[in-house]
Amino acid sequence: MNIVCLDLEGVLVPEIWIEFSKATGIPELQRTTRDEPDYDKLMKFRIDILNKNNLKLPDIQKVISEMEPLPGALDFANKLREKTQLVILSDTFEQFAKPLMFKLGWPSLFCNTINSDDSGTVTGFTLRQQNGKKEAVKAFKLMNMRIFAAGDSYNDLDMIREAHCGCLFHAPAQIQKVNPDLKCFDTYDELLTIIESFLK
Amino acid sequence: MNIVCLDLEGVLVPEIWIEFSKATGIPELQRTTRDEPDYDKLMKFRIDILNKNNLKLPDIQKVISEMEPLPGALDFANKLREKTQLVILSDTFEQFAKPLMFKLGWPSLFCNTINSDDSGTVTGFTLRQQNGKKEAVKAFKLMNMRIFAAGDSYNDLDMIREAHCGCLFHAPAQIQKVNPDLKCFDTYDELLTIIESFLK
Repeated sequence: MNIVCLDLEGVLVPEIWIEFSKATGIPELQRTTRDEPDYDKLMKFRIDILNKNNLKLPDIQKVISEMEPLPGALDFANKLREKTQLVILSDTFEQFAKPLMFKLGWPSLFCNTINSDDSGTVTGFTLRQQNGKKEAVKAFKLMNMRIFAAGDSYNDLDMIREAHCGCLFHAPAQIQKVNPDLKCFDTYDELLTIIESFLK
Repeated sequence: MNIVCLDLEGVLVPEIWIEFSKATGIPELQRTTRDEPDYDKLMKFRIDILNKNNLKLPDIQKVISEMEPLPGALDFANKLREKTQLVILSDTFEQFAKPLMFKLGWPSLFCNTINSDDSGTVTGFTLRQQNGKKEAVKAFKLMNMRIFAAGDSYNDLDMIREAHCGCLFHAPAQIQKVNPDLKCFDTYDELLTIIESFLK
């Protein structure tokens, strides 16, 4: 049995923090793992900014609910789910992704959890596990699945390499350059074609 | 992060072989694991009948495509998928379940595979793995998931007991009787309520 594991942000939906930064007019929230490789430190920095600006979880969800999947993503996801199983492996938080999952027809999403108190103030976050994308692929292997994986970023490389087959998608030039063994595609038609050949 | 693992047949859709037997008027196809506990032997018996009656994979899929999910199942699945992740763990075959997955909005389905030749003749089947439902729950635990599981039959008991929490659903009286430690529910409202209390 086959399964396709896809990254979420940059692949099916826009980068959530970047869009959130634009919507709120807080440029500091554009800082990503490329600027601050320590994820724990980066998230504490972000949560600190949220709290300083009195942005609570419902405010964040409201902004995210106004975002849309990338053009063509819903059609691609629908076609894919008619052919095989899809699980989205993401470093985002389930409470953030929810409005976008609704717009994508509720594909399965394995990600992390944001913590908030009764007032909606964001107090922290819980990683499902360290290196969660790669560990998920390893666990799917224990279920005897054949796995195809695709993503756009540094945190997708271990997942792609752990899978039986995979590729980069929408990856920045620098990531493509230092990973010449991984093909990179930029359209959903190309991605669907390569997955179809994997499924045969 | 939480995940709900549900059996398919008897829980969200009718028993596929029973319905198929009715639709084709072949009573031998009503034979189940309760009559023949050796699954391999049972499937060989079924495939033999399919071939004797010249029923090919597209014929089977056509009959199944006329089936409907159980009353209320789609609404229940939709409500559940807004609250948490759902993966269906089933002993059915992906090619059989497909038309019903379409009617349920393509939830994730981990199951087995039927083998057929170019003419559509069913030649055999491939189990994803032995005891696939329990093994899937064990693998989800390695992903650090909290798991709720529910099913109606003997082959669901290991899955339910391996999960952090679970129950029987639509189970025959005999199965309830010999598993007094497992609660059994018969309506989707009850099942949703017990799952909601697990998610809290």
